Amino acid sequence: MLYLVGLGLGDAKDITVRGLEVVKHCRRVYLEAYTSILTVGKEVLEEFYGRELILADRETVEQEADNMLKDADLCDVAFLVVGDPFGATTHSDLVLRAVKLGIPYRVIHNASIMNAVGCCGLQLYNFGETVSIVFWTDTWKPESFFDKIQKNKKNGMHTLCLLDIKVKEQSLDNLMKGRKVYESPRYMSVNQAAEQLLAIVQNRRLQGEELEITENTLCVGLARVGATDQKIISGTLQQMSTVELGGPLHSIIVAGSLHPLEIDMLKLFAADESSFEDNECHRNT
Amino acid sequence: MLYLVGLGLGDAKDITVRGLEVVKHCRRVYLEAYTSILTVGKEVLEEFYGRELILADRETVEQEADNMLKDADLCDVAFLVVGDPFGATTHSDLVLRAVKLGIPYRVIHNASIMNAVGCCGLQLYNFGETVSIVFWTDTWKPESFFDKIQKNKKNGMHTLCLLDIKVKEQSLDNLMKGRKVYESPRYMSVNQAAEQLLAIVQNRRLQGEELEITENTLCVGLARVGATDQKIISGTLQQMSTVELGGPLHSIIVAGSLHPLEIDMLKLFAADESSFEDNECHRNT
Repeated sequence: MLYLVGLGLGDAKDITVRGLEVVKHCRRVYLEAYTSILTVGKEVLEEFYGRELILADRETVEQEADNMLKDADLCDVAFLVVGDPFGATTHSDLVLRAVKLGIPYRVIHNASIMNAVGCCGLQLYNFGETVSIVFWTDTWKPESFFDKIQKNKKNGMHTLCLLDIKVKEQSLDNLMKGRKVYESPRYMSVNQAAEQLLAIVQNRRLQGEELEITENTLCVGLARVGATDQKIISGTLQQMSTVELGGPLHSIIVAGSLHPLEIDMLKLFAADESSFEDNECHRNT
Repeated sequence: MLYLVGLGLGDAKDITVRGLEVVKHCRRVYLEAYTSILTVGKEVLEEFYGRELILADRETVEQEADNMLKDADLCDVAFLVVGDPFGATTHSDLVLRAVKLGIPYRVIHNASIMNAVGCCGLQLYNFGETVSIVFWTDTWKPESFFDKIQKNKKNGMHTLCLLDIKVKEQSLDNLMKGRKVYESPRYMSVNQAAEQLLAIVQNRRLQGEELEITENTLCVGLARVGATDQKIISGTLQQMSTVELGGPLHSIIVAGSLHPLEIDMLKLFAADESSFEDNECHRNT
């Protein structure tokens, strides 16, 4: 049996009781380590589980999946994923490969950023399409996520923006020379995401576009959701460029139309309560 | 401290290790029992936790919240919610009341139907607004959820439809006479939801409306997601009216535009593979 086990979002203790049982009894246990991170590392998990974990980076999962699944028809193998195995990143590839090999599988669900963001008080019901904001480079500055956010906003929907993670990336130079030298991991902060969004707002305004999203649009910045030191701050997009949220992982929500109860919740996390005065308080229905 | 603890979706063992610790040490532990259910009842949970639970129905949470929160500034009180405390139903009211009373709170997240539906292979990214389908009566047949599903479909988005739950409801007669006699709980099945949707399709067609959703629209029926006996079937809306999924809770997804990997996953659960032949396979981008 292949078990896909969600680890939740905080630390070692956020695994479910069932998930922990699975981890303890499986022959081999892989830890997916390229789409998200916990606030603790592999060693802390190993100590808590009382067993060794095999780190599975993107290369392993994409190119050596058959090795990972070896004998999983005869013994139990677990694949641990931060959040939920079908959360922000789905692991459909691995499931499809297992099924093709005649290996049964089971998913042990957990919280993922896709549902845990509800803790800020915005109703999950009212979220539209989720977007990813990628790190811009000098020569590559995509804006497609902005159009999706504007579309959601126009429909009254909130947008969860997942922020880029660069793990085990090679510099262009090392990549071209085939050197397996990797850069330090980078995690986009709410500040960086807000700056990119503000740059797009300015560009579009110069082009004379009528904007749904401006510097004054209400947003929520979230850091380390689910961990004991999680931080949530609500305020304008402009404010998001300077809020201090601490270490990764970060996410940002661009709010759509707000229900009074949602406003009351967001005020608990306000960078500055006056941000709420000029904003619309009705829901599109 | 007030702890809001998600129980996940299956049975007692789907609580997180941290959640279990909280349940064991709190002075009072309430179990929310009106917005969702596990596959096991209160007694099984009590045995697993080794302690007594206090059942909190809608009346208790809405009218006696101050009693629930009594002394929670001095001792620890837990409020257990099936799924996640900010999943399909948010418990913002209780949080706001606690904050007002100066009581700190903490959320222990877990999987909810809002993210666990990803197990069918449809990407959570591509879901639009979530809708609730309510039980129709002879005199009340709302259709607003259908318009939201059509809007999502038009935008290429999938729609998660949460199905009505009637727990501790009074008949009109008993209500008017003030008799606290309650009907048996009712949980809408995928069959019933599909029948209501098909009735709307027929109505709208008679009215000459151009439809995004028809009898042939691809859907996914899900039952007891996260439990060991969960069941997932993909097929047309027409097929959803006759699939057999067993006991509650059920949900239905109306698929939007499909990515090839999503199609491959849905085929694992196909009521009949031919349903996939006539359907569009591209994504709106």
